[in-house]
Amino acid sequence: MNETSHARRGRRAPRQAGALEQMPWRIPLNTDAPTEPIGPDGVEAIHRGVMAILRDIGIEFLNDEALALFRQAGCKVEGQNVRMDEDFVMEMLDRAPGPFPITPRNPDRQIIIGGKHIVFVNVSSPPNSWDMIRGKRSGDFDTFRDFMKLTQYFNCIHVAGGYPVEPIDIHPSVRHLDCLYEKLTLTDKVVHAYSLGRERVEDVMEMVRIAGGLSDEAFRDTPRMYTNINSVSPLKHDFPMIDGALRCARAGQAVIVTPFTLAGAMAPVTLAGAVALSLAEGLSAIALLQYAAPGCPVGFGTFTSNVDMKSGAPAFGTPEYMRATQISGQMARFYGLPLRSSGTCTSNIPDAQAMWETSNSLWAAVQSGSNLVYHAAGWLEGGLIASPEKFVLDCEVLQMIQRYMEPPLWQTAPEDIALDAIAEVGPNGHYFGCAHTQERYTKAFYSPIASDWRNYEAWELAGAEDSIARGHRISREIIENFTPPPMDEGIREELSDFVARRKAEGGAPTDF
Amino acid sequence: MNETSHARRGRRAPRQAGALEQMPWRIPLNTDAPTEPIGPDGVEAIHRGVMAILRDIGIEFLNDEALALFRQAGCKVEGQNVRMDEDFVMEMLDRAPGPFPITPRNPDRQIIIGGKHIVFVNVSSPPNSWDMIRGKRSGDFDTFRDFMKLTQYFNCIHVAGGYPVEPIDIHPSVRHLDCLYEKLTLTDKVVHAYSLGRERVEDVMEMVRIAGGLSDEAFRDTPRMYTNINSVSPLKHDFPMIDGALRCARAGQAVIVTPFTLAGAMAPVTLAGAVALSLAEGLSAIALLQYAAPGCPVGFGTFTSNVDMKSGAPAFGTPEYMRATQISGQMARFYGLPLRSSGTCTSNIPDAQAMWETSNSLWAAVQSGSNLVYHAAGWLEGGLIASPEKFVLDCEVLQMIQRYMEPPLWQTAPEDIALDAIAEVGPNGHYFGCAHTQERYTKAFYSPIASDWRNYEAWELAGAEDSIARGHRISREIIENFTPPPMDEGIREELSDFVARRKAEGGAPTDF
Repeated sequence: MNETSHARRGRRAPRQAGALEQMPWRIPLNTDAPTEPIGPDGVEAIHRGVMAILRDIGIEFLNDEALALFRQAGCKVEGQNVRMDEDFVMEMLDRAPGPFPITPRNPDRQIIIGGKHIVFVNVSSPPNSWDMIRGKRSGDFDTFRDFMKLTQYFNCIHVAGGYPVEPIDIHPSVRHLDCLYEKLTLTDKVVHAYSLGRERVEDVMEMVRIAGGLSDEAFRDTPRMYTNINSVSPLKHDFPMIDGALRCARAGQAVIVTPFTLAGAMAPVTLAGAVALSLAEGLSAIALLQYAAPGCPVGFGTFTSNVDMKSGAPAFGTPEYMRATQISGQMARFYGLPLRSSGTCTSNIPDAQAMWETSNSLWAAVQSGSNLVYHAAGWLEGGLIASPEKFVLDCEVLQMIQRYMEPPLWQTAPEDIALDAIAEVGPNGHYFGCAHTQERYTKAFYSPIASDWRNYEAWELAGAEDSIARGHRISREIIENFTPPPMDEGIREELSDFVARRKAEGGAPTDF
Repeated sequence: MNETSHARRGRRAPRQAGALEQMPWRIPLNTDAPTEPIGPDGVEAIHRGVMAILRDIGIEFLNDEALALFRQAGCKVEGQNVRMDEDFVMEMLDRAPGPFPITPRNPDRQIIIGGKHIVFVNVSSPPNSWDMIRGKRSGDFDTFRDFMKLTQYFNCIHVAGGYPVEPIDIHPSVRHLDCLYEKLTLTDKVVHAYSLGRERVEDVMEMVRIAGGLSDEAFRDTPRMYTNINSVSPLKHDFPMIDGALRCARAGQAVIVTPFTLAGAMAPVTLAGAVALSLAEGLSAIALLQYAAPGCPVGFGTFTSNVDMKSGAPAFGTPEYMRATQISGQMARFYGLPLRSSGTCTSNIPDAQAMWETSNSLWAAVQSGSNLVYHAAGWLEGGLIASPEKFVLDCEVLQMIQRYMEPPLWQTAPEDIALDAIAEVGPNGHYFGCAHTQERYTKAFYSPIASDWRNYEAWELAGAEDSIARGHRISREIIENFTPPPMDEGIREELSDFVARRKAEGGAPTDF
């Protein structure tokens, strides 16, 4: 009986979360040598280009505090343009720590960012969702909750990143309060704050502190959460992102800086140029953070892909995307920074195209030595759609990547080479019966959760479910049977009181 | 306008083959460093294991000629068991040539096997086909022809390997004659002979000679075709495979030896053991061929995967499959042999599962440094189904791999880093308009053939075709508008006469 029939049987048995035999929680170690398309000369050439951009062209910071800090550091500030020299940038990069932990309210869910560690984040920030019953529709709070349940359920998802869908039925002034309350109670994994205004960042930090039962000091003592900021490519950082990044960095929380550089649109059409621009934008912000909060935990994010030059639309999971990710990995190692990349696709539904694009991007994440993989489960339509079916199917791929990284797959001790078994079975036997197999078979191979490995006739007889239908069924079973992780009742009340108070105060200011 | 809408528009315009803007014929060079999960000690440990199997356990050869040759070479032959020592095996492997060409009737379609070259073979040998209109059904000759047209049409397919489906409406005694006639007239790419009896191998060699307009001497002078043989794992080679391999090798034609070692079934449950067994079987046959025909062109094929330990069914595209392929690549390099691997999946239809499994196996082929990738387009249900839709979708993935291997993606010259363009566009511009982009945009990025990169609304308005539907439509357009490659009329008649004569003689003997 395979996993699929197990899950199917689960519909008749009393429903319970955990019907899938998923892989255990684990932070995989990616010990493969990264794929490095450019040689040392290429790394040096890109580095020279990055430094030339920072020294001669400069980056605009639409943030007065940042401009003052750069001025204080001796950089050349003209209007909002900041130019900085190599010595300053490299000295600031030297301050960045090695691999660092982020510890959420459940310390067992601690993650490590950097080194050979690789962790996976749920889909973040699509405005819409799609499922096979309801099609595409705007995000809402119920759907947000569904995705939080999937995020918590799957052990291969390590981080509850941004909002899987934007819940447009919650007013933006208080959306972060409701969303973080749900996120912190429905999951016990690392969470993130959007750097979209002072109140949003400060409120999220406070809620993470409360959820962890932490003093102010304990919260600031080690990273408990993170923010991810984007530049406004080309060559610009806006006010709120830099403001949020500074707040987090000064509070000891992690910051990932991810320029979104589409080659041929907001970045050069050549990949080396797009990567160089992306690094210049990223390093300028990281230098600022290290100046303001020396040693603060930071990472560099790559989001370099290409547009479809016939339509101008962004494309993801392309060969260019893969190479840009790998080259970004080489540069991140050169600068001593952890790398963030993503699981991406252009497809509108979780069909074959979605999976070759997603596989391309996830394998590029592995090959590049990425440490943090955003959007690793659930993303469609270039990030405009989150899908529960896709979430489940992606988790199958992530579990396979986790299994791919387990040392038993490449062990070569005598019992692995198994000469005794080969001699015992001989030329006319079968290995299933031998002791060597019997001792190992239950854990010898990856066991799937959403794949159907039955032959065509058995599969057809059972209803001929395709991958989307299986993903849908499994996602509903998980959502309908979800049990939230435990939380101390006092902490829950404190969190709830905080949300009520901040709502009464109006939350975060909006224009409407 | 993207490729999909282009192809769609093609339905209204006069039909013609070539409606897709596919990539040009090219033998890609895979310059990435291969992924090597085991260290030098692991390579040595597996090598020691392989040599111990060959020396102490032995391989059965159900072929008297092979036994006589091994006896003559001084190996220990007891009954059908042959044991050989390391010196003999390594001396024979030393005779294998470096990278070698195979030149079909159209010399422009020459391929190179070995080195950093990677070539892709169509799906070979499924008994059944599946398409979205007719579902699963037994293979027949019309369907065989359809797949030959797809094989010829796509430039990313370099080899017309085995039969894409078995045409069960053609009697086995003459099937090879009809199939090769179609193969040699519908395509001008490298073909293969099944080593299933003297007549089949000799007839195919003669037909390839005729199709190439070659003298006997010219045919034998350089590889014009190849055969692929499988062992009967564990530890056995049967009569016809070895017979065909010897015939090809002595005629200067290439031989690929591909043990089919399912870990936990006909091979040890541990991957290192399954790979070691596979190598012992493969090297024993290659040693025989080098003894019989020194310097003959040979390659080693890996087909190590795992079974689903819950059902015993084979599974493909798994993490274990990927690692076994990579380790096999390390060992093939150790022994100085070209590597064959495959594009595989377990899924029954071309859905999401099919593509994550196929992507896993194709990326493993790339990472392992494979030189020849069988079943690279069209395979489903663990090799029991060939599908035209899957063929088209796989060609999209193969084209992306081809593009992934093109050096412009990782060039770092000053014009690639594009400082001038970055300065020119500045912080408030857009790159599409700048000269740097305009000079490059038509060829800057991969252009898809079966992907739909439009946004959801545009895609829905146009009929919301999923990948399977697009693959189906494109496959029908190619098949219905197919133009065979040119062939000299005299050669065609000679080929036709040969087939008629051999049919009159009864073809190959069968039991029925």
